[in-house]
Amino acid sequence: MTAHVPADVLSRLKAVVGSDGWSEDPARLAPKLVEWRDRWSGTTPLLLLPRTVEEVAAVVGVCAEAGVPVTPQGGNTGLVGGQIPQGEILLSLEKMRAIRDVSPLDDVIVAEAGCILTSVHEAAEAAGRFFPLSLGAKGSATVGGLVSTNAGGTAVLRYGTMRDLVLGLEAVLPNGEVFRGLKRLRKDNTGYDLKQLLIGAEGTLGVVTAASLKLFPILTSRATAMVGLTSPHAAVELLARAKAESGGGVEAFELMGRRGLEFVLNHIGGREPLESPYPWYALIEIASGQEGAAEAAMERILTAAFEAALIDDAAIAQSRGQAEDYWALRENQSAGQKPEGTVWKHDVSVPVSRIADFIAEATAAVEARYSGTRVVAFGHVGDGNIHYDVIQPAGGDGKAHAALRDEGSRLVHDIVSRYDGSISAEHGLGAMKSAEALRYKSAVEIDAMRAVRAALDPKRIMNPRVLF
Amino acid sequence: MTAHVPADVLSRLKAVVGSDGWSEDPARLAPKLVEWRDRWSGTTPLLLLPRTVEEVAAVVGVCAEAGVPVTPQGGNTGLVGGQIPQGEILLSLEKMRAIRDVSPLDDVIVAEAGCILTSVHEAAEAAGRFFPLSLGAKGSATVGGLVSTNAGGTAVLRYGTMRDLVLGLEAVLPNGEVFRGLKRLRKDNTGYDLKQLLIGAEGTLGVVTAASLKLFPILTSRATAMVGLTSPHAAVELLARAKAESGGGVEAFELMGRRGLEFVLNHIGGREPLESPYPWYALIEIASGQEGAAEAAMERILTAAFEAALIDDAAIAQSRGQAEDYWALRENQSAGQKPEGTVWKHDVSVPVSRIADFIAEATAAVEARYSGTRVVAFGHVGDGNIHYDVIQPAGGDGKAHAALRDEGSRLVHDIVSRYDGSISAEHGLGAMKSAEALRYKSAVEIDAMRAVRAALDPKRIMNPRVLF
Repeated sequence: MTAHVPADVLSRLKAVVGSDGWSEDPARLAPKLVEWRDRWSGTTPLLLLPRTVEEVAAVVGVCAEAGVPVTPQGGNTGLVGGQIPQGEILLSLEKMRAIRDVSPLDDVIVAEAGCILTSVHEAAEAAGRFFPLSLGAKGSATVGGLVSTNAGGTAVLRYGTMRDLVLGLEAVLPNGEVFRGLKRLRKDNTGYDLKQLLIGAEGTLGVVTAASLKLFPILTSRATAMVGLTSPHAAVELLARAKAESGGGVEAFELMGRRGLEFVLNHIGGREPLESPYPWYALIEIASGQEGAAEAAMERILTAAFEAALIDDAAIAQSRGQAEDYWALRENQSAGQKPEGTVWKHDVSVPVSRIADFIAEATAAVEARYSGTRVVAFGHVGDGNIHYDVIQPAGGDGKAHAALRDEGSRLVHDIVSRYDGSISAEHGLGAMKSAEALRYKSAVEIDAMRAVRAALDPKRIMNPRVLF
Repeated sequence: MTAHVPADVLSRLKAVVGSDGWSEDPARLAPKLVEWRDRWSGTTPLLLLPRTVEEVAAVVGVCAEAGVPVTPQGGNTGLVGGQIPQGEILLSLEKMRAIRDVSPLDDVIVAEAGCILTSVHEAAEAAGRFFPLSLGAKGSATVGGLVSTNAGGTAVLRYGTMRDLVLGLEAVLPNGEVFRGLKRLRKDNTGYDLKQLLIGAEGTLGVVTAASLKLFPILTSRATAMVGLTSPHAAVELLARAKAESGGGVEAFELMGRRGLEFVLNHIGGREPLESPYPWYALIEIASGQEGAAEAAMERILTAAFEAALIDDAAIAQSRGQAEDYWALRENQSAGQKPEGTVWKHDVSVPVSRIADFIAEATAAVEARYSGTRVVAFGHVGDGNIHYDVIQPAGGDGKAHAALRDEGSRLVHDIVSRYDGSISAEHGLGAMKSAEALRYKSAVEIDAMRAVRAALDPKRIMNPRVLF
């Protein structure tokens, strides 16, 4: 369903970026029109590949004048279809991938939108600093996409999401004007913080072309432990103790259940992390700038937790290799489910204090309504972020399970909502969840968002299918 | 210049809050119509004192319908006149001061807008947690004002400004509707983050009625040092080393010059912090969750800095009392200047790496143009935030100095702007700096802010004299 874009508009867009700045070649376009899990595919009349913010501005200016919609795309690693055009002009930032500056004195890196996350990590490290945001897709995900989706990942507990890490943005607004906000200030109270609007806007309020991002010290002391627990309740209690005892040194606190662990051990491989099996596991990582401090804090935390009968068993990794083995058990939770069949996936968050109750209530409801389904809940307990997956009955009919997905997801999301949670903790709404989110957000919020969007993009040219 | 508010509107507003919810008594109004430094005074036809968010909503609803402007006020500690009505209805949040919840498991405190900051600190501590934002006015400043001005204070280097500490907001929007966003989620990617618009909006996009705020562990290990330095360059270099070596444990890094220190010693009192005088001083505080770790990190940092000839002398406080003495030298920098006469004050920020050059260039320019004036620069180096004060010539004419303030401030602010800085690092723009900020912000930014404001407040009833 490629929307009709007038030929003169296409010509003007091509002229803006020059002969090597666009493509209509199906082979060149193909990988940008399919989501990596093959869940979404799209169409576009034209792929644009601008090299500078001025070219992006000219492109958006032409689109704004003509009222032609445009979808920006970064590394195409999104999980909710927001980056796949459905007839819009496709604006890829892949040619804007310079690291413009790294300053250890300012603790700042300035990276263009097309920079891959791994490049940011490497450039920071070369300057003796650390950029904390990381996630599975770090080899493909780009700065522009990470900003536009307010990415989370593995270190949110200590360092926050992308929103907390952006000091400044350069972006092209929907009217084609350039917002030159690449500040590197820690304090600036001079009006509304426009960059906050662009972060997490999923490309609907403009095109992010570069970001200045916070850097941190490299922490040399690190301890990783796997803990066996009776319940998620105990995990939440242990998290609170670990945060307090380590003085905020907990970098990751991940929860997983026995079922998910067994899927990994059976289908992917790995070793039993503890001598006996336990219903639940917590993977804890603590980091410190002081030699030996993380290890000492971990020892203190686990010893006290044993004495309080809060945990049943624990092992502290004796090498980086062993720590990586523990992490593999967590990181393979999704892959481990695949051979078990069709899965309803939910990326939800609830207040940390209510995680245990949420898991219990949702699982009881799902199992009662959908007999034989198998719940695998795991995720970032420290952020209240649970990947709540419902797998088809063992040996059952995958298609039948898939057919129930919308209904089943509504059951789960309704419970999330009653727990004051979010139906999209870190993936965003994209094309997949925008309509569904209307069910859970108040009219006041939706109206305010629509008013802001209409004010900045009156023709609704920016990623029009996404958000509200 | 009290604007005319129709009698029927006043009646409806009084009816909304009931007989003990409003006042026209000049004695009751007086303290709310004068800024605490007596720089701003105002007028209002009516003081409203709602007790619930529903009453606030009803008040704003009446004002919106009638197109009558309203100025919200918290603890009246603002420094830029944003809270002083000039004829608008005055909406005080002083009766909404409940702490609605403190949750150590969620690391959250939910406080109403009228809560005094000290109450938040105490409630957090009673729950075994720490709320890090603090500032001189903590005994009067309220949550609503702190959110609406994106307050900074003494621990921004480690914990960020209010923007970084707010998990959720409840607010009444300019149309009188209630935004019920008192979430306590660490991750929620479901559309624009509306609370970010309200933070730092200085009451122009609605009335904040409550906030859920992040809590942190109480850190038990703490070390404070006073360091003698040759230049601000050395201070910036020392800061970078201290951050890296402590693994992010630096909580405060304050700079002050010899002149400011002497004013304090001469006019306020206190002891020379080091054996010999130095041109510049850095006050460093490091905190850690591990017993002894802060002290050890401070020793390592200072020893290495000596060896690198980066610092000239240093003393680590041997008791909390001594640490407090060091802090008093810093905290009395403003008070110490007062007996010296009239002062042009500037609350500016620049990138940390450029602080030293900024101070040098601005001071040369000011001293060249205004012979005999005395610059006292001090502040939060870690945040790039400098309080850049220009005192009248010794024994000179204070009124003549005051008459040159606007011209002199423009000189300073123009240099700040060339250093990619901010003319209001933490105080906001209020009535004092909004017009001036037009000179330094781009048309793109101003237009975007105006569009957002007009979309949410088409009649411009919310604090109309403030911002753009």
